[in-house]
Amino acid sequence: MKGDVEFIMYYIGVDMGGTKIAVGIVNEKGDIISKDSIPTYRERGYEEVVKDMGLLILRLIKAQKLFVSDFEYIGIGLPGSINKKDGILIYANNFGYHNAPIADELRKYIDLPVFLENDANCAALAENVAGAAIGTQNSITITLGTGVGGGIVVGGKVYSGFNDAAGEIGHTVILSDGKECTCGRKGCWEVYASATGLIAQTKRAAFKNPESLINTLVKGNLDNIDAKTAFDAEREGDKTGSQVVEQYIKYIAEGIIDLINIFTPEVLVVGGGVSKEGENLLGRLKKIVYDNIYFKGEPKTKILEAKMGNDAGIIGAAMIGREG
Amino acid sequence: MKGDVEFIMYYIGVDMGGTKIAVGIVNEKGDIISKDSIPTYRERGYEEVVKDMGLLILRLIKAQKLFVSDFEYIGIGLPGSINKKDGILIYANNFGYHNAPIADELRKYIDLPVFLENDANCAALAENVAGAAIGTQNSITITLGTGVGGGIVVGGKVYSGFNDAAGEIGHTVILSDGKECTCGRKGCWEVYASATGLIAQTKRAAFKNPESLINTLVKGNLDNIDAKTAFDAEREGDKTGSQVVEQYIKYIAEGIIDLINIFTPEVLVVGGGVSKEGENLLGRLKKIVYDNIYFKGEPKTKILEAKMGNDAGIIGAAMIGREG
Repeated sequence: MKGDVEFIMYYIGVDMGGTKIAVGIVNEKGDIISKDSIPTYRERGYEEVVKDMGLLILRLIKAQKLFVSDFEYIGIGLPGSINKKDGILIYANNFGYHNAPIADELRKYIDLPVFLENDANCAALAENVAGAAIGTQNSITITLGTGVGGGIVVGGKVYSGFNDAAGEIGHTVILSDGKECTCGRKGCWEVYASATGLIAQTKRAAFKNPESLINTLVKGNLDNIDAKTAFDAEREGDKTGSQVVEQYIKYIAEGIIDLINIFTPEVLVVGGGVSKEGENLLGRLKKIVYDNIYFKGEPKTKILEAKMGNDAGIIGAAMIGREG
Repeated sequence: MKGDVEFIMYYIGVDMGGTKIAVGIVNEKGDIISKDSIPTYRERGYEEVVKDMGLLILRLIKAQKLFVSDFEYIGIGLPGSINKKDGILIYANNFGYHNAPIADELRKYIDLPVFLENDANCAALAENVAGAAIGTQNSITITLGTGVGGGIVVGGKVYSGFNDAAGEIGHTVILSDGKECTCGRKGCWEVYASATGLIAQTKRAAFKNPESLINTLVKGNLDNIDAKTAFDAEREGDKTGSQVVEQYIKYIAEGIIDLINIFTPEVLVVGGGVSKEGENLLGRLKKIVYDNIYFKGEPKTKILEAKMGNDAGIIGAAMIGREG
């Protein structure tokens, strides 16, 4: 690997999920050279899971005719609370583990430093290193999915606060004393701007407006409503669908305006299933945001669609220990 | 100054306000060694104002038997939008200046680099270097005054985003489509959590509840209500006063919880006139905050009262160019 002609750095990233563990070897540009995955079978307990993870990593290294000593560290992205210093997964409801010493466990099989990072932070770092926010020092990536996730990159590094718990941008209030959030608080952004929120808003609107096309699209069964339904109804000229979408975009905008007023990142990246609506969502979102942010001068934060897709977790995890 | 025995660094900080310009010489611990001030007379235009500022700085240096060459830079804190790179005050309604090249102007009189910084950021840096957040890497200082100001310190430095416009934490929404804010948006934290907001809330409550002691305290004239009135009424057992205070503290808490969920700073400092209520405010505030933040584990962000008082502007400005 370290030749006279060319010196290429490779990194190992692990996307450790409740269902699947994906491992990739990534080059310094953030391209995946090789990847593979195994089922998690989390019920086995973390020791067995981490053992299989270690074997998969070793297999991947060998298949590339590389050596453990060619790498500087292993990065693992996972959902949950983390103690980064000690490499401990404090808690993640996707696994059910409490205080699992993931790093120490993995070091039983591979003699490299192991860094843990929250998966939303990994996705944000991937967008910063190789995606929509490439070339910027400060960027924020939000993910509109079941919840509203997010990661903050400051100075090219994940910002995670003094206790590794920062970046919970979905849990900022946009309606004080509003609807209950899973976090115990009321009125969080996530309640309104997540895909889950959109579905609930679409259901309520369809129920209140029996004449709406939404009801036809789901054949009268509101349980068939998904995060696309209101957008689809709007495209076919439905007024209720359009109202739902308008209000939903307003909710997304509220949180984005907050983030821009606080951070003015160079780029704010919007990802997650809902962002697949593309310019129909992003264009309207940008109009509300730019009309309402505090600093009306130039330059402004760019708002861009996420680029990294499913590999963001691996790539971001691979980059978390990188210098500079 | 640079002797064999002792090597002490001194810094110059300027707190440039619409009414008064205060200059101080500050040591590396953040103690003011010497200070003086002059009226701004902003109507003269920035050239004359900056000339007087320069002469005041030179006088102060001379009085301390120091030389311009003993200093590395001059730091100026001022209210408004700033282009830091070029040392330009883009706009500040306290002065009425547009695109005033403050740094270049001051360099006509003193041959030192000149750094500009927003005054709320200077106050936050002062708390970080020498006040309530001393010894921390990451801290946030909020100021509950006419508005809600704030400054974010990350890694011991002011965080101001890629366009120097970050840190507008008063302009994050807590009630989507709520009351109009001066920034043009609706429902900003500042509308509810500022002293101005508290006064408006107290007035409304007094008007709706003629039997409330608030009316007695202000001798029936609601224009006499200030940011202390509701607290005073509560202390004397008034129910309406107590309700106003409870709700007001809840509003303050909403924004603080948001900031902690986003940043988990090591310390969050609360300053401004309202914070003079001390533990009566802070104790109740902390209860709501710690019950509602996302990360319930340890360690938690500490919430502390501001320590720096009126000299925060000078001290923070003096520190803005410091390395490390």
